[in-house]
Amino acid sequence: MQIARKLVEKQRTSQKVFDGELLQVYKDEVILPDGNTSYREWIDHPGACAILPVLQNGQVVLISQFRYPVGQIFYEVPAGKIDPGEDPFDTIERELKEEAGVTARNIAYTGLFYPAIGYANEVIHLYVAWDCDQQENNVDPDEFVEPWKISFSESLSMVANGEITDGKTMACLWKAKIWWEKNGPFKINL
Amino acid sequence: MQIARKLVEKQRTSQKVFDGELLQVYKDEVILPDGNTSYREWIDHPGACAILPVLQNGQVVLISQFRYPVGQIFYEVPAGKIDPGEDPFDTIERELKEEAGVTARNIAYTGLFYPAIGYANEVIHLYVAWDCDQQENNVDPDEFVEPWKISFSESLSMVANGEITDGKTMACLWKAKIWWEKNGPFKINL
Repeated sequence: MQIARKLVEKQRTSQKVFDGELLQVYKDEVILPDGNTSYREWIDHPGACAILPVLQNGQVVLISQFRYPVGQIFYEVPAGKIDPGEDPFDTIERELKEEAGVTARNIAYTGLFYPAIGYANEVIHLYVAWDCDQQENNVDPDEFVEPWKISFSESLSMVANGEITDGKTMACLWKAKIWWEKNGPFKINL
Repeated sequence: MQIARKLVEKQRTSQKVFDGELLQVYKDEVILPDGNTSYREWIDHPGACAILPVLQNGQVVLISQFRYPVGQIFYEVPAGKIDPGEDPFDTIERELKEEAGVTARNIAYTGLFYPAIGYANEVIHLYVAWDCDQQENNVDPDEFVEPWKISFSESLSMVANGEITDGKTMACLWKAKIWWEKNGPFKINL
């Protein structure tokens, strides 16, 4: 990319300022494109996956989950952090089963995105699943989630009307919509 | 919401574990819905705004910016943190001018979203602007951004083909598309 040279910042020093269970926080000194220095505080994240499970009747399975940092219950697609060394496809199959009670015979990759580029290196890989069976969910002892089903098109309306406000869920739905319109194995009105 | 009671987590203690310039990091002990306790690490964020400036010819103004945590240059909509006590509309006018060199005669609110509900309380308010004049941009000394123009529809294609991968830019574009299709002051093929 032509513009790269005059925009890039280079690391000078890096200091871990918080070593948490979930969050690894760093404060780095950086050299700016003009040669001056500044500081960047950022979070090292292992990456995550999110998936939209589509049922044979055109419904999708979302989950409701309380999110402590915001203090609200959100409607979300099933998602989870990638364990060290884990294949993202394994992550997504695990989270599908645990959070949504879904087993999928087919999964397609729809793309990736970065949720918080100002302060985290987190990448979220996005998927869509079909030919799904749904049973009881089976969550971790400290996760409390409720799965529920609505039509794919209704989930898109919930973005439009502001009922869905979780960034990864919006990104996952949009990429799934784009993918389905082009490659969908069966017809759904979106 | 009926499900709230059995999903909600309550704060028991809260400890600030990193007091940075940008990041305020907390580790809280919480009481889970089943009465057990767990820990939540999270970032306190003042909130932000992002805006899609639409020019009379149907082009939009995006910016290129190097994002240190990810180590990449991203295509983004103009955006910025809300200063303490600042009206989000003032934030957005400032960032439009500084980052994109744009003055807008009309701005509409298209909604809000939460970029990282797993570990931050950040909310991003989303806007679309029209009747815009564009001059040179005028960025902060430690910000290095490049504004550039493409058609609104091309920006949507860049989400589809994976060239745009910044979460707030995806959310801002989608909400702007939805808003424009319903309320757009002039016709653009999207």
